[in-house]
Amino acid sequence: MSKIVTIVETKMENWANRKTLILGRSEMIGLLSPAEYNQCVEQAYRMHGEGRFYMDPKGHIVLDRFAGEWEAMPSYIEEPHAAACKWVSIREQNRERYNLPTVFSILIYTEPETGFPLAIVDGSYHTVMRTGSAGAVSAKWMARPDSKTLAIVGAGHMAEGALATCNEVFDWSEVRVWSRSQATLDRFVHEQQPKYDGFTIRTSTDPEEVVRGADVIVTLTPARTPIIKADWVSPGTHIAAVGADKAGDQELEGRLLTKARIFVDDIRQCRTDGEINVPLSEGLITEADIAGEIGEVVTGRKAGRTSDDEITIFDSTGIALQDSATVPLEYQRAMEKGVGIEKKMIST
Amino acid sequence: MSKIVTIVETKMENWANRKTLILGRSEMIGLLSPAEYNQCVEQAYRMHGEGRFYMDPKGHIVLDRFAGEWEAMPSYIEEPHAAACKWVSIREQNRERYNLPTVFSILIYTEPETGFPLAIVDGSYHTVMRTGSAGAVSAKWMARPDSKTLAIVGAGHMAEGALATCNEVFDWSEVRVWSRSQATLDRFVHEQQPKYDGFTIRTSTDPEEVVRGADVIVTLTPARTPIIKADWVSPGTHIAAVGADKAGDQELEGRLLTKARIFVDDIRQCRTDGEINVPLSEGLITEADIAGEIGEVVTGRKAGRTSDDEITIFDSTGIALQDSATVPLEYQRAMEKGVGIEKKMIST
Repeated sequence: MSKIVTIVETKMENWANRKTLILGRSEMIGLLSPAEYNQCVEQAYRMHGEGRFYMDPKGHIVLDRFAGEWEAMPSYIEEPHAAACKWVSIREQNRERYNLPTVFSILIYTEPETGFPLAIVDGSYHTVMRTGSAGAVSAKWMARPDSKTLAIVGAGHMAEGALATCNEVFDWSEVRVWSRSQATLDRFVHEQQPKYDGFTIRTSTDPEEVVRGADVIVTLTPARTPIIKADWVSPGTHIAAVGADKAGDQELEGRLLTKARIFVDDIRQCRTDGEINVPLSEGLITEADIAGEIGEVVTGRKAGRTSDDEITIFDSTGIALQDSATVPLEYQRAMEKGVGIEKKMIST
Repeated sequence: MSKIVTIVETKMENWANRKTLILGRSEMIGLLSPAEYNQCVEQAYRMHGEGRFYMDPKGHIVLDRFAGEWEAMPSYIEEPHAAACKWVSIREQNRERYNLPTVFSILIYTEPETGFPLAIVDGSYHTVMRTGSAGAVSAKWMARPDSKTLAIVGAGHMAEGALATCNEVFDWSEVRVWSRSQATLDRFVHEQQPKYDGFTIRTSTDPEEVVRGADVIVTLTPARTPIIKADWVSPGTHIAAVGADKAGDQELEGRLLTKARIFVDDIRQCRTDGEINVPLSEGLITEADIAGEIGEVVTGRKAGRTSDDEITIFDSTGIALQDSATVPLEYQRAMEKGVGIEKKMIST
């Protein structure tokens, strides 16, 4: 504790001449290991569970003229002591119209005591990893300890983060990936297989083939009608439903939720935006059927899985605390390695 | 119109290699003239009046442990076609504890069609000017045409912007400034007087002396009990109440509002945060007593001042559209002048 205090005081002395670190996407890659992303996201859930944070539910700015949305995601977390605001633009037609990524995001990392902007970073890779960690951390706390087979439903950018982070929590003997498009699957295998030698990535454009018999399923699609049928899912499976994050989104057949133990990341967001939003609005489940928030599991106040044949579901909408919990370590690493540029943004 | 389209198309072709412009505070200074800030802010009000925008009411993140707040301010405006998100940290004890500014802010300027982050800029000087313009534009539309005497109540950073922008809308023969502190007043005169030769800046630590007989009064304080008494204000005065911007703030004696024609910038913000919030909560006035929003005056749907002896009040809380309306021109100027640094933030 005394060490931390010393560091903070040293910082404070130099505030007036301090620069702000600017990191582009390529500079954000590799600052943290996948295991560290998991630790940071688990810490975000812990602080959430302990109520040691400030975060409004994520707002969605949706305009008729654009397919997509904006999100402003401010948050404050006590440990690590940090504030952050991420500004996210989602434009679904970017790739096809402009050959640009669908998502742009900029994350501002703020020292909470002074409000000083310590860093401004591209949020895209960071988001891929901290979103992957949502699934991985939920698997750590809710999947069967003997889990061997991982199914990833969706092979876009988020799948890279899911695979890297899930690889840290179990010793997978089989990894299967689904996409509607074989070309997307081929690209995924080409890019990701060289990073792993413990398993061969198997692919299919048939979701049933990928999902049946899997111990852990991570769903990462923007589906608005269910992709995963209840009958395909065996007792004892853990599902991290990471894709659905706005009203009307749904990746799992509603019936699957009626027989599962369900946790969410933040009930305020999930009830309107998460995997549970459609089943709730249809009356298939009620909020009383939700076992709790993952922060309650991480802090030990609620049991995650309660039996080996239970189906567990984690509904992740993505919380801003995943950003404020992670960016301090990314910042520290970049400063240590001399990555990025430092710029005097303020005048004192 | 065809010219604008051409510019946008040219931009689109080069998106994939595009860099993001980063501007620090010192680089933001002087990009626009005070008259241009007024034009941009007037345009923000015009778009507001025409409903051609998206903006949620400003949220306040207030934590017991910090004197101050955070604000996340996203907005979208149709003309100029822009989106922006400003992340503001206010820490009231920064100067005394760390010799740092009270306010830090970072503004992200986003191209709305793609979501591409065109620029990331320090928002402090920008905010001083676009906030000053709120008062100046209201004076243009609501003050008596023969206004000669300007009173500025408060001599902090915002006063610089108020004086520079108000100087563009009337030919002042007298400018008076109030602060509680003579040292603050002396510093203000020392810094500002050299910029103006049409008038001598007169100062007083007595608000009555500054306010009595003024044609236009701009208030810029964080007061939580009224500074300006109703009896000091002559018929025909225009008051731009710019300071009060959160629940409980109040600069004007409530009785003054009962005899004035009142406009606000955005009723959703003002009813809870603006100069009107305390009188409304006390029942001294009701929302029916508010003449309208300034956008309705700028678009000609409502008359501002209706007689020479009317007292007009403009309640400004500061709207995010003032940022999205202004940053495109600041960006254009900086690019033309080669100011700031360009950095590849994204990977495509």
